[in-house]
Amino acid sequence: MAGAAPRPWTDAEESLARRMAGADILSVRQFTADELVTLLDLVARFEGAQRPVLQGKVLAALFFEPSTRTRLSFESAMARLGGACLGFADAGVSSTTKGESLSDTIRMAECYADVIVIRHPREGAARVAADSTGIPIINGGDGSNQHPTQTLLDLYTIRRRCGRLDGLRIGFLGDLKYGRAAHSLIEAVGMLGNQIVLVAPDALKLPAQRVDELRQHKVSFVETGDLDGALPGLDVLYVTRIQQERFGDPLEFQRVRDAYQVDAATLDRGKAGMIVMHPLPRVNEIHPSMDASPQAAYFEQARNGVTVRKAVLALLLGARP
Amino acid sequence: MAGAAPRPWTDAEESLARRMAGADILSVRQFTADELVTLLDLVARFEGAQRPVLQGKVLAALFFEPSTRTRLSFESAMARLGGACLGFADAGVSSTTKGESLSDTIRMAECYADVIVIRHPREGAARVAADSTGIPIINGGDGSNQHPTQTLLDLYTIRRRCGRLDGLRIGFLGDLKYGRAAHSLIEAVGMLGNQIVLVAPDALKLPAQRVDELRQHKVSFVETGDLDGALPGLDVLYVTRIQQERFGDPLEFQRVRDAYQVDAATLDRGKAGMIVMHPLPRVNEIHPSMDASPQAAYFEQARNGVTVRKAVLALLLGARP
Amino acid sequence: MAGAAPRPWTDAEESLARRMAGADILSVRQFTADELVTLLDLVARFEGAQRPVLQGKVLAALFFEPSTRTRLSFESAMARLGGACLGFADAGVSSTTKGESLSDTIRMAECYADVIVIRHPREGAARVAADSTGIPIINGGDGSNQHPTQTLLDLYTIRRRCGRLDGLRIGFLGDLKYGRAAHSLIEAVGMLGNQIVLVAPDALKLPAQRVDELRQHKVSFVETGDLDGALPGLDVLYVTRIQQERFGDPLEFQRVRDAYQVDAATLDRGKAGMIVMHPLPRVNEIHPSMDASPQAAYFEQARNGVTVRKAVLALLLGARP
Repeated sequence: MAGAAPRPWTDAEESLARRMAGADILSVRQFTADELVTLLDLVARFEGAQRPVLQGKVLAALFFEPSTRTRLSFESAMARLGGACLGFADAGVSSTTKGESLSDTIRMAECYADVIVIRHPREGAARVAADSTGIPIINGGDGSNQHPTQTLLDLYTIRRRCGRLDGLRIGFLGDLKYGRAAHSLIEAVGMLGNQIVLVAPDALKLPAQRVDELRQHKVSFVETGDLDGALPGLDVLYVTRIQQERFGDPLEFQRVRDAYQVDAATLDRGKAGMIVMHPLPRVNEIHPSMDASPQAAYFEQARNGVTVRKAVLALLLGARP
Repeated sequence: MAGAAPRPWTDAEESLARRMAGADILSVRQFTADELVTLLDLVARFEGAQRPVLQGKVLAALFFEPSTRTRLSFESAMARLGGACLGFADAGVSSTTKGESLSDTIRMAECYADVIVIRHPREGAARVAADSTGIPIINGGDGSNQHPTQTLLDLYTIRRRCGRLDGLRIGFLGDLKYGRAAHSLIEAVGMLGNQIVLVAPDALKLPAQRVDELRQHKVSFVETGDLDGALPGLDVLYVTRIQQERFGDPLEFQRVRDAYQVDAATLDRGKAGMIVMHPLPRVNEIHPSMDASPQAAYFEQARNGVTVRKAVLALLLGARP
Repeated sequence: MAGAAPRPWTDAEESLARRMAGADILSVRQFTADELVTLLDLVARFEGAQRPVLQGKVLAALFFEPSTRTRLSFESAMARLGGACLGFADAGVSSTTKGESLSDTIRMAECYADVIVIRHPREGAARVAADSTGIPIINGGDGSNQHPTQTLLDLYTIRRRCGRLDGLRIGFLGDLKYGRAAHSLIEAVGMLGNQIVLVAPDALKLPAQRVDELRQHKVSFVETGDLDGALPGLDVLYVTRIQQERFGDPLEFQRVRDAYQVDAATLDRGKAGMIVMHPLPRVNEIHPSMDASPQAAYFEQARNGVTVRKAVLALLLGARP
């Protein structure tokens, strides 16, 4: 793209950028379908090297539960834009151990930084944080609830690979009961007008309440336990980690894990060009032999995560690429 | 202040700034009363956004005992001035676990940084550090001894709120036996010519040696266990955390904690305009309902902490705002 | 050197710098003797303050086992050149605890950074890392195998102090069985044409395989248990830490430790000008009374470590001083 005249900003981009300056990012639900698409347009403007538009700005990364990937991704985004980062990588290092309330910790961080990303084991913690401060809060994952920058990078990757964000047939495989990344993405792609195929063992099916929500929003979806039956017609296969601790019986875990491992043979049985995604870290769900395939999109997801976070940080702080 | 011609430097400021370049900050006792006032004048020059005068400079933050607040405050100060920060957040990560002496750790850090802040559980550790290196050492708290930048931010907050630093009536409430922040501030405000009211349960009274020192320095003070009796006439109420582990009997802890909790009703019984301070983190000593009151100064303390540390770092490194 | 015209680059320097851009540093064995000398010439160009040639660049420091000294040294080098650093200080914070493979962790870090330094308890881990990514990998120590930047700083210190890197008589004292720093340096100084004197108790002698390698490469060396006998004629005495856990019998440990402690008296028995080195941290191997001696070179090693890492980071990233 170097040398090409930059695409002029659309009215929708201008308007969304203005509204995001100083705002919080707590959930993808705070955006309409149109806004999500516009936001991804804005993200695309942050691809590649950037001017240090966040020089002198500070991000407080408050990780009350460890998450190397999310934390480093935000730190990288900040560094790429010339800004600095401080905080803690797990709650043991924070003042919480002295009995400090979350709200007080946030008001402390507000004195040190311009924007805060918080990861917390408790659902709703990011909302409490946002209510405690006037500076922007980014939800970096609150319990089993939301992790909006993860959803944005997933959406961005789908659009980058498939060329569009609607009319796709998107399969979700693995742990659909506990997987936060899957829950949030299912909701978003449903809202954007895609067909959803939910592939999970009985023990790890999408919770009834979430199924009801899909019905209420008239999202087109099917549920199945059969991966092979589900494969034909999928444009995207989104795989999640199946954790042993979810199973009482180790043999049952073994059986499920083997039934749902994705490898080169899986690709052969699917549609040509179907992409495979995974929020990472993976363990056995995707065989490493698949990594070299152009259909593997999971490392690109990690890369897009930095682009998404650069965009979100810059927009919340009122900076432009 | 933007647009206004900057206040010219006084001779006292020039002289103090010259003496601080390359020096250590180990204790507030190293400053005379006049110097403390001049230092706060210098701190005021570091309010708000700054030029990156510490670009290329490195702070080593060596925390042999965790202290999120102090560490992040120094990191933020360094970032705001364009500098970088490295170090460790608790002793478990340091070479101390391999049996290295403190002096050797400091001589190592001296190779990596331009200035060192050290937090250590042992009284006198900062002095040992200063004797081991030629680069400036900042005492970030050594055992129950000193934490000079905390005292400076407390003094700065009092002056900012009360308009002066002498002739005030300043109450200290809670744990006056173990609280380092209170000890150091009591000493400083006594030296500056203020009246002191010490309010503590019998088990947590100011140690006899410190009481003797107040007498020797002819500081005006009273001791009491009765908060309500002490309130009228106070310009400042400095509250400290009462820790359960100080009490053998949980019921006794409960009784003391409840007797000394500060809330909106406390404000009603005090002088109009009395400010309430706390070094934070707080647990139950100050009721959150008080946070919105203009009399609550504890979050401003945290904010002033960054300003104080910006000033101290810049002055020790010979930089000006 | 300020004001002096900079020494023009030699063809050897130009050629080596070109080959190092984008390369990995996994072992000193990847350099010929001539290349090592040229590399140290390049390192010398990074002495003192530098332009921020790595601004906008990011180093990922992945420490799967803690090493304060190495980590802070790399962080300092990066900061001195204007770059940023992110990562983790021990494996407990990494995704490894979720079962992620090393290769996947590296491919994640590759999305966040321009260069990676890895410290890992497993021999060969740095090679696995290099095979997993296209960005430069620096081996920051892999088990008992290699730690090339440590060897480079040792060589740089010897040349700076002794004026040359060949024809010297270099003694190694202490734990020659497990000490990685010693192993790697013994190999390098042997290759460069120096005489080697190995001084160790029976329990901690250089492993037979390494002795064989010295013979194969026709390196001139002697083995002894007697420090006093070995001292005369040494230009360099390289001391290593003797760890109690290597001994079953505490009395035997005591005896060995006392026999090999280096102090002022040791200097008296050695050649005038013999320098004493140690990779640090030290415990009792070198008495602190020796620290002030001009013959003590161990803190200069730490300082040279930053210079070496500045050079390595800049060269791998294609930047010049």
